[in-house]
Amino acid sequence: MLSQRLRYAALQDRVVTAEEAASWIEDGMTLGMSGFTAAGDVKVIPLALVERAKKLGKPFKVNVYTGASINSKIDGVLAESGIVNIRLPYQSEKRMRAALNNGDVCYIDQHLSHTAELLRSGAIPPVDVALIEAIAITEEGYIVPTTSVGNSHIFVAQAKEVIIELNMAQPLALEGLHDVYDPGHQGHRQPIPLTEAGQRVGTTAIAVDPAKIRGIVITNQPDVSSAIVPPDEETEQMAQHLLNFLKDEVAAGRLGPNLAPLQSGVGSVANAVFHGFLNSEFRDLEVYSEVLQDSVFQLLDAGKIKMASGCSFTLSPKTNEFVMENLDKYRDKLVLRPQEISNNPGLIRRLGLIAINTALEVDIYGHVNSTHVMGTQMMNGIGGSGDFARNARLTFFCTKSYAKNGKISSIVPMCSHVDHTEHDVDIIVTEQGLADLRGLSPRERAKRIIDNCSHPSYRPLLQAYYEEAVARGGHTPHIIEKALSFHARYVQTGSMLE
Amino acid sequence: MLSQRLRYAALQDRVVTAEEAASWIEDGMTLGMSGFTAAGDVKVIPLALVERAKKLGKPFKVNVYTGASINSKIDGVLAESGIVNIRLPYQSEKRMRAALNNGDVCYIDQHLSHTAELLRSGAIPPVDVALIEAIAITEEGYIVPTTSVGNSHIFVAQAKEVIIELNMAQPLALEGLHDVYDPGHQGHRQPIPLTEAGQRVGTTAIAVDPAKIRGIVITNQPDVSSAIVPPDEETEQMAQHLLNFLKDEVAAGRLGPNLAPLQSGVGSVANAVFHGFLNSEFRDLEVYSEVLQDSVFQLLDAGKIKMASGCSFTLSPKTNEFVMENLDKYRDKLVLRPQEISNNPGLIRRLGLIAINTALEVDIYGHVNSTHVMGTQMMNGIGGSGDFARNARLTFFCTKSYAKNGKISSIVPMCSHVDHTEHDVDIIVTEQGLADLRGLSPRERAKRIIDNCSHPSYRPLLQAYYEEAVARGGHTPHIIEKALSFHARYVQTGSMLE
Ligand SMILES: CC(C)(COP(=O)(O)OP(=O)(O)OC[C@H]1O[C@@H](n2cnc3c(N)ncnc32)[C@H](O)[C@@H]1OP(=O)(O)O)[C@@H](O)C(=O)NCCC(=O)NCCS
Ligand SMILES: CC(C)(COP(=O)(O)OP(=O)(O)OC[C@H]1O[C@@H](n2cnc3c(N)ncnc32)[C@H](O)[C@@H]1OP(=O)(O)O)[C@@H](O)C(=O)NCCC(=O)NCCS
Repeated sequence: MLSQRLRYAALQDRVVTAEEAASWIEDGMTLGMSGFTAAGDVKVIPLALVERAKKLGKPFKVNVYTGASINSKIDGVLAESGIVNIRLPYQSEKRMRAALNNGDVCYIDQHLSHTAELLRSGAIPPVDVALIEAIAITEEGYIVPTTSVGNSHIFVAQAKEVIIELNMAQPLALEGLHDVYDPGHQGHRQPIPLTEAGQRVGTTAIAVDPAKIRGIVITNQPDVSSAIVPPDEETEQMAQHLLNFLKDEVAAGRLGPNLAPLQSGVGSVANAVFHGFLNSEFRDLEVYSEVLQDSVFQLLDAGKIKMASGCSFTLSPKTNEFVMENLDKYRDKLVLRPQEISNNPGLIRRLGLIAINTALEVDIYGHVNSTHVMGTQMMNGIGGSGDFARNARLTFFCTKSYAKNGKISSIVPMCSHVDHTEHDVDIIVTEQGLADLRGLSPRERAKRIIDNCSHPSYRPLLQAYYEEAVARGGHTPHIIEKALSFHARYVQTGSMLE
Repeated sequence: MLSQRLRYAALQDRVVTAEEAASWIEDGMTLGMSGFTAAGDVKVIPLALVERAKKLGKPFKVNVYTGASINSKIDGVLAESGIVNIRLPYQSEKRMRAALNNGDVCYIDQHLSHTAELLRSGAIPPVDVALIEAIAITEEGYIVPTTSVGNSHIFVAQAKEVIIELNMAQPLALEGLHDVYDPGHQGHRQPIPLTEAGQRVGTTAIAVDPAKIRGIVITNQPDVSSAIVPPDEETEQMAQHLLNFLKDEVAAGRLGPNLAPLQSGVGSVANAVFHGFLNSEFRDLEVYSEVLQDSVFQLLDAGKIKMASGCSFTLSPKTNEFVMENLDKYRDKLVLRPQEISNNPGLIRRLGLIAINTALEVDIYGHVNSTHVMGTQMMNGIGGSGDFARNARLTFFCTKSYAKNGKISSIVPMCSHVDHTEHDVDIIVTEQGLADLRGLSPRERAKRIIDNCSHPSYRPLLQAYYEEAVARGGHTPHIIEKALSFHARYVQTGSMLE
């Protein structure tokens, strides 16, 4: 029933079609769209906009800002249509990736906690129109988001006009899960009062002057759920190394039995690790993360996790269906926050998180490349990995020790691109083993990473490189003309092996 | 008079010689020593310890933790004596540099705000003995630091024993300037209540159980003041570019006339910039920085700065003498804090700082190397530059466009070591000009950096590299086998020029 969803009567005459809403968007505008990891994204207006641009038959470009990645269909169609000028702060879609790698799209890869600040300070073009998916408009005309919060609050605050996609397929029972907190302008801020992972510090809807809401488009499409990557032998080995390490930390008294609030990136390793917690002795765990995946709900069901805070749900179709139908069961254990709060450096440090993220490659000194294949081709983006890695109490990076059937070593002499410096990386995990780098100087780090983490087929090559480098000396020994030789060889021969 | 300085009567019988204090330090111990940028460091016990180790005539090693760099004499003698195992988190001394670059010392280069957290979480060996310079011991037996706070509070909290150097040459009038705040353990923290640069949130002395104070050594040596590097033509040009940019930001409404709290690294560029403020229209400025240098006091005298917060004073002999004799004049305008507060990521973001730091080299995409000459030889360390750069509202990196009489270009295709990724760098300044990188994709960044910042003798080489790289494609175009060719050429021929 629309009246349950659209409770501010004066807005009821603003219901329009996607086409009409799209017709308000002009060439050169900046759009702030809801959506984080394909959750809670606007689903019809972007497609209508692409149609409008086609029909216009003249150059038409917009800037597209989101929370993080949006569902592949939208990012893909936007890329193909050629209407995107600037895209930020994150994407993970094949066609968008191609467009930004060939220079057609100006992609600005950002720490996910930074976008709101960059908008406030005027460092990037301001948002003209906010496109926000909602489950409801409240009695005050405020916007209740759906399965993510992302950057929606700042887009709404900054936009001249707001257009809502009121999605009847997103359950109204989501209402009450959100915790919208806007820290305000830098230099005029109070401390964010959050001191526990599950604490509520904000409001359940995004405040807005209803006069700014120009149109409301009614939709009825569930989120495009993510395919869940099942653990394979190697991700299970990685999870096991990591869990054993955590057990040892508890035994050594450096962590308590309920560890510290957990953050984990998306993907198979994260899922395998969280799966591993199911059969572990850890209890009363807390999650303070970006994305909440299937495994978080399994752990909630099993009573292992007592609270989970994130900024979006990214679930498989089956879990999504179950969760959306049983939200009452999880209501008091879940919080969805803006990404500048879920990823806030001050809060991550205050809470003392354990951060588990995935790398493309790691070098022998512990620098991490999360983004650029062979130093040049953008994969997805840095996402929140830097927000967490830098400020967490314990920072893990996981990667298989090799890629492309062994043609690539994920442990290299020098990263071809650095997203996380050795200062921010505590522990490297591959299927081969785990390297605890805390309190080690670079030379000690190199030995441990090569010995514990590299694939046996590359270990001798890495050892030889390291020994030759040490003979030249330096705090971080390198043979500068060979530091990227593994990559150069791959580009030339299709393999990093000699 | 000792009684004014040593007000806790029960400690009066603990006064000992430096030699006696040193005799309590055993092989394998970890020492937490006060001192930040050669301010407030312990001056006699480390030298006595070196003597003790010599006399022992058997292997003797200690770990040496400090706030940041200490005066060259101490770090140099420690390095020469060969008694240092681990050294952290920062140094800037010739002999220590040689020792760590040849692998004799295990140097752990850390973000300066991280050391206290790493100690709390047990990530690095704990402090056995704290050696702290003080102006006084209070009636409660608490320690009043001298010209820096640094990591002293955490060293004192963690050490089993504390030894004080009570320095009669440091004026008692420093008392009251310090603001010691310990955030407590991660996961059990309240928000740090600081919302303005000059606000006091802590205590004026370091709380300690006086029973832990094993000995007190009386000293009478002023800090070894820093030589002030006068601005030259090029640093003045850099300062001018930077100030013009700030004026434009005010004109564009992105900053107010009193800007935002300023942080600046040590050195000639920082001094030149601050000098430039003297004759500018900016007013009511605030400083929230690590080190307070001469120029801060000139600006205080001129009424340009209304508040300055730091974690140490690093002054030239003349300014030092004047300031120490006239502390009352500055009393209500100065605060000295622990480095985990001056450099706190949450506070830096909350206050929205303008951060001005210096780079060794910058690449065409805006990555910054602050530490490793030719990717291998450690210069000093990352210091606080990462704490500030990542979290500031506006992050500048300055460098002359060339080094070693033009044999080295400070703008290179790819940094030979990355301390700050492009995500953390807003603006590059050289004597040639300024590149505002905000809101630019990597390809746009490259053009702007090469055009505005590179030295004319290297510009064509950089342009040629960039064009060849773009022909290969990628979000961040590189020719992987040539990305470090400038460095390789320098290592081989002594010049980066072809
Ligand atoms: C780094 C990242 C791409 C790894 O993703 P993943 O799905 O766990 O890893 P996979 O092993 O499946 O690798 C993904 C692809 O990269 C390739 N790859 C992996 N390592 C590689 C390497 N060292 N060099 C080149 N390619 C590599 C794989 O072959 C695979 O390619 P394909 O898609 O053509 O099959 C992903 O975690 C990411 O985007 N991270 C950055 C953002 C982030 O960390 N977000 C979470 C923070 S909250
Ligand atoms: C980067 C840093 C070394 C620059 O120092 P500086 O004194 O401003 O710079 P200078 O131009 O005088 O250069 C210092 C030396 O590096 C050399 N140098 C400069 N650029 C170089 C380059 N690209 N490659 C090799 N050497 C270079 C200079 O020739 C000079 O050498 P010298 O000592 O033999 O004469 C210094 O700022 C630093 O240590 N920064 C890291 C810590 C930090 O930022 N702290 C403040 C944060 S709060």
